[in-house]
Amino acid sequence: MGFTPRRYLGVKPPSPTLLLPFLLPVLLVGGQGDGNAAMDNVVTERMAEESHRQDSAYLLIFIMLLTLTILTIWLFKHRRFRFLHETGLAMIYGLLVGVILRFGIHVPQSTSDVVLECAVNASPATLLVNVSGRFYEYTLKGEVSRGKDHQVQDDEMLRKVTFDPEVFFNILLPPIIFHAGYSLKRRHFFRNIGSILTYAFMGTVISCFVIGLLMYGVVSFMKVVGQLGGDFFFTDCLFFGAIVSATDPVTVLAIFNELKVDVDLYALLFGESVLNDAVAIVLSSIVAYQPTGDNSHSFEAMAVLKSFGIFLGVFSGSFALGMATGVMTALISFYFTKLRDFPLLETGLFFLMSWSTFLLAEACGMTGVVAVLFCGMTQAHYTYNNLSRDSQDRTKQLFELLNFLAENFIFSYMGLTLFSFQSHVFNPMFIIGAFLAVFLGRAANIYPLSFLLNLGRRNKIGMNFQHVMMFAGLRGAMTFALSIRDTATYARQMMFSTTLLIVFFTVWICGGGTTPMLSFMSIPVGVDSDQEHSVSN
Amino acid sequence: MGFTPRRYLGVKPPSPTLLLPFLLPVLLVGGQGDGNAAMDNVVTERMAEESHRQDSAYLLIFIMLLTLTILTIWLFKHRRFRFLHETGLAMIYGLLVGVILRFGIHVPQSTSDVVLECAVNASPATLLVNVSGRFYEYTLKGEVSRGKDHQVQDDEMLRKVTFDPEVFFNILLPPIIFHAGYSLKRRHFFRNIGSILTYAFMGTVISCFVIGLLMYGVVSFMKVVGQLGGDFFFTDCLFFGAIVSATDPVTVLAIFNELKVDVDLYALLFGESVLNDAVAIVLSSIVAYQPTGDNSHSFEAMAVLKSFGIFLGVFSGSFALGMATGVMTALISFYFTKLRDFPLLETGLFFLMSWSTFLLAEACGMTGVVAVLFCGMTQAHYTYNNLSRDSQDRTKQLFELLNFLAENFIFSYMGLTLFSFQSHVFNPMFIIGAFLAVFLGRAANIYPLSFLLNLGRRNKIGMNFQHVMMFAGLRGAMTFALSIRDTATYARQMMFSTTLLIVFFTVWICGGGTTPMLSFMSIPVGVDSDQEHSVSN
Repeated sequence: MGFTPRRYLGVKPPSPTLLLPFLLPVLLVGGQGDGNAAMDNVVTERMAEESHRQDSAYLLIFIMLLTLTILTIWLFKHRRFRFLHETGLAMIYGLLVGVILRFGIHVPQSTSDVVLECAVNASPATLLVNVSGRFYEYTLKGEVSRGKDHQVQDDEMLRKVTFDPEVFFNILLPPIIFHAGYSLKRRHFFRNIGSILTYAFMGTVISCFVIGLLMYGVVSFMKVVGQLGGDFFFTDCLFFGAIVSATDPVTVLAIFNELKVDVDLYALLFGESVLNDAVAIVLSSIVAYQPTGDNSHSFEAMAVLKSFGIFLGVFSGSFALGMATGVMTALISFYFTKLRDFPLLETGLFFLMSWSTFLLAEACGMTGVVAVLFCGMTQAHYTYNNLSRDSQDRTKQLFELLNFLAENFIFSYMGLTLFSFQSHVFNPMFIIGAFLAVFLGRAANIYPLSFLLNLGRRNKIGMNFQHVMMFAGLRGAMTFALSIRDTATYARQMMFSTTLLIVFFTVWICGGGTTPMLSFMSIPVGVDSDQEHSVSN
Repeated sequence: MGFTPRRYLGVKPPSPTLLLPFLLPVLLVGGQGDGNAAMDNVVTERMAEESHRQDSAYLLIFIMLLTLTILTIWLFKHRRFRFLHETGLAMIYGLLVGVILRFGIHVPQSTSDVVLECAVNASPATLLVNVSGRFYEYTLKGEVSRGKDHQVQDDEMLRKVTFDPEVFFNILLPPIIFHAGYSLKRRHFFRNIGSILTYAFMGTVISCFVIGLLMYGVVSFMKVVGQLGGDFFFTDCLFFGAIVSATDPVTVLAIFNELKVDVDLYALLFGESVLNDAVAIVLSSIVAYQPTGDNSHSFEAMAVLKSFGIFLGVFSGSFALGMATGVMTALISFYFTKLRDFPLLETGLFFLMSWSTFLLAEACGMTGVVAVLFCGMTQAHYTYNNLSRDSQDRTKQLFELLNFLAENFIFSYMGLTLFSFQSHVFNPMFIIGAFLAVFLGRAANIYPLSFLLNLGRRNKIGMNFQHVMMFAGLRGAMTFALSIRDTATYARQMMFSTTLLIVFFTVWICGGGTTPMLSFMSIPVGVDSDQEHSVSN
C-alpha cells in the first residue's frame, strides 16, 4: 500500500467524493505522464486512508459493544441475575447497535467503490490491476449477496460491518473450541464417553436427517401453495439439518458451572455439545459438496458412501493431527523440563503449538476447528501436567480470556446481523416449520438414544436428565457461523434468517429458563466435584 | 466467500492449473447459462480453497520459526549465552528460512492470478467485479513492487510470504509499544524526564537532519559519479533520517534488565528509545507527505511550519487520546471496584479499553501506535493500582506474551525479507554512506545534548554513560516497519535494503557486544532497584 498521509488534525483531507468531480476530467483523459500519475497516487492513498479510518471506526464500535457487555455482565453477576446470560446479553447489545446503524445513522453514499465490468470468466483469488502503469494487488474478499431483484446491495456502511465469514472459522471459533477441549472435566467425560459419543455422532446424524426430511416436507408444501420464492433442494434441507444440529457448549454450561450441577449431566451435555460441533461442521460440508460435480442436487447411494468415507477421513485426520500436536507439545515440555524456569517461554510455546495445529490441519485440507478441539483435550490430559504451576495458570487464563472475548464478539455480531445483513428472507411458514423440525429433531436424538444407552448403563440417564438435555440444546456460535458462511442463494439466505431466529429463541428463552427448569426437574445442584485436580476447577 | 468444499483426504482436488486448459474453451466462449456459471463457481471455490491452504501453510512456517526461536532462546538462557539475544536469533532463523524459500524450494508458477488490464484511472479501495452475473468483492491489498525494468515480479510464493506492511502498524507494533509503556519503571523515568524528552524530541530531530543532510551529500556525489540508478530527492534523505533515528527498546534493554544495570542509564535509554519511536513515526509521515500537493520535492519554509504544526497536533492528539483512555479505564476500575471479584472480566475490560485507544486514534486520523504508548504509561500509573492482585498479574502476563510473540515475529520476518523481498537495491556507496551517517547522527544526538543537559543536572550523565548510549542505539522493529511501509520507488527500495543491513549490524554486532561494552565502560551492574512496587519488577 502506498505510504498514506495520515496526519490531519484539524486539517481534514478533502473527501474523495469532493475531489473526484474536479479530477474526473483529468483522470478520464488519462495517460498524461507523471503529474497525473502522482495525483492518482494521492487520490488512491486518500481513499485507502479513508477506508482504513472507517474500518477502525467500525471495529471500535464492536470493541465498545464488548466493553458494555462486560460491564453489564459484572452488574448481573453482582446482583445474581441469572435470567440473561452473557451471550444473550451480547446479542441484545448487538441488536441495539444493529438498529442504530440500520435506521439511525445515515451515511451519504461514497463513490469510492468502482464496479468493474471486465471480461473475466472466473473470479480468481488475486487480481492484479493495471492503473496507469502501476500494479495494484486485490484479494478476493467474498461474494456480494444480491437481493431478490439481483441488484447489488450497496449500502456501504452495512457492508463494512459485515465480516468475511471465514473470520469465524479462522480467528474466532478456534479459541472457543480449543478452550472447550482444554477445560473439559476429563474424568467425568471419559466415564460417560460411550454415551457422549453416541449422542454426538449418531444423535447429530439422526437429528440432521430428521430435520432434513421434515424440512423437505415443509418446503415441498410451500412450493405447492406458492410460498417458495426460489429453489430449495433436498441437499439444502439436509444442510440445514446439519448446521442446526450443532448445540452450543457456552451458555448453558456457564450456568451449570455456576450452580454446580450434577457432574454426569454436565459431562453429558458438555461433551455432546462440544463434539457435535465438530460433527456438524464436517457433516455440513459433506452435504453441501456434490463430489460428482453434478448439479442435479439429487441423492445417490454412491454419493452417500463417498460422503461417509470423506467424513471419516476428515474427522479422523483432524483428530489425529490434533492429538499429534498435543502429544508433541507434551513431549517437548517434558524433555525441556527446565523451560519451567521461564513461564513466558513455556506459555509462548504452548500457544504457538496449539495454533500450529489449526494451521497444519487447514493446510492439509482437514478441519482446523476439529483439530484444535482434540489438541485442547490432549494438551489438558498430558501437557498440562508437565507445565510449571505458573504456566498452568497462565495458559488457562490466556485461553479463558481469548474464549471470553471471541464468544461475546460472535454473539454481539449475531445480534447485529439481524439488521446489518441485507438479504434476509423471512418466511413465516418456513420459520414455524423449522422450529417444529428442530424441536422434533432434538427429541428424536435424545429420547431414543437415551433409551438404548440406558439398556447398557449402570448409572441410568433419568427422564429428568433427558428433559433437561432436550430443553438445554441451545444453538449458538457454530450454527451461526455455518449458516453465514455462504449466503449466495435464496435457500441459504432463508436458512440464515431462520437460523438467527432459532439461535435468538434458544439462547434467550431456553437459556433464560434453564435455572427454573433445573429446579423444576429436580436436578441436583451445588454438587461437589469429586475429581482430582484438573484444568477446569 | 462461496462455501468451499474442503474435505479431500486422499482425494486431492485437481489443481486449478490442471483444470484450466480443459475449461478454457468453455470459459472463453462464456455466457452459456447456469451450467457454466456453476462450473465457474466450483473453479472459483477451488482456487479460493487452494489459496487458503497455501496461506495456512506459509503462516505455519512462521509459527514453526517462532517455536524454534523459543526453544533456542531457552537453550541460550540455560547456558547463559549472552552474545546473541532473542531478537538477533529470530533474525538468523528468518534468514535461514528466507534462503530455503528463495533458493531451495521451487514451486511451479500457478496461473491463479489474473492480470486485469482495465480502463481504471485510480485504484479504489474496493472493487466489485462482475463475473457472469455474480458480483465478487475485492479489497486493495497493496501495490506490487516492480523491478528496475518495470516488470511485475511475480514469484508467487515469495509474494505470498510478504505481508501487507500495514500488518505491522495495525497488529504487531501496538502490543510491543503498549508493553513498553506499560512496563516503564516510572519513578526513574520521571526522575530523568527532562533528559529523556530532550533526547527523544530534540535528539531525534537533530539525528534526522544530520543524517538527511549527510545522505543528501552522499546521493549527490553518487549522482555525479553516475552511481545513482533513479531519483533520490532531499525529502527522501530526510525520510531516511527520520526512520533510521528510531532506536529499538527491545534488545538492549532485555540485556540491561538481566544484568540489572544502573537504573538511571536504564531509564535514559529505555525512555529515549520508546519515545523516539513515537517521534520517528510522526516525523517520517510528515516528511513524506507534501502538504501542498506539490511534487517538486523541494523544501519550503511554509511547508516546514505547517509540518511542525501537524507534528505537534498529531503527537499531542495521540498523547491526549492515549491518556484519556487510560484515565477512563482507571476510573471504571475504580468505581466498579467489585470487578475485582471477577479477574476475567477485569482483564477483558483492560484489554479492550487499551485496544480501543488504538482504534480511536486511527479513526480520528491520529497515530494509533503513539496513542497506545501513552495509554500504556497511563494504565501503569493509575489503572494498575485499581486492579486486583490477580488482574495485575494477568494483564502483565498477557501483554508480556503478546509483546514477546509480536517482537520475535517481526525480527524473524526481518531476516526473511532479506531474501523474500524482490526489489532490493544494494548500492555499496549508499550503504557505506548510510552507516557513517547513522553513526554521526547518533553522535550528534547524544554528545552535544548530554553536554547541555549536564549543565542543568545534579546527577551528571557521565562520559561512560554517553558512550554506552551511543553504542547501544540499536535499530529494530520500528525502523524496519517504517522502511517497508512503502517500497514503490527506487529511492525507497534502496532505503529499505540499506535499513535492513543497518538493523542486522546493530542488533548482531552492537547487541552482541553490549555485555562486554558494559564492563569495558565500568557501568555498574547488579544494582538493586530501589523503587516502590511497580509493574515492571
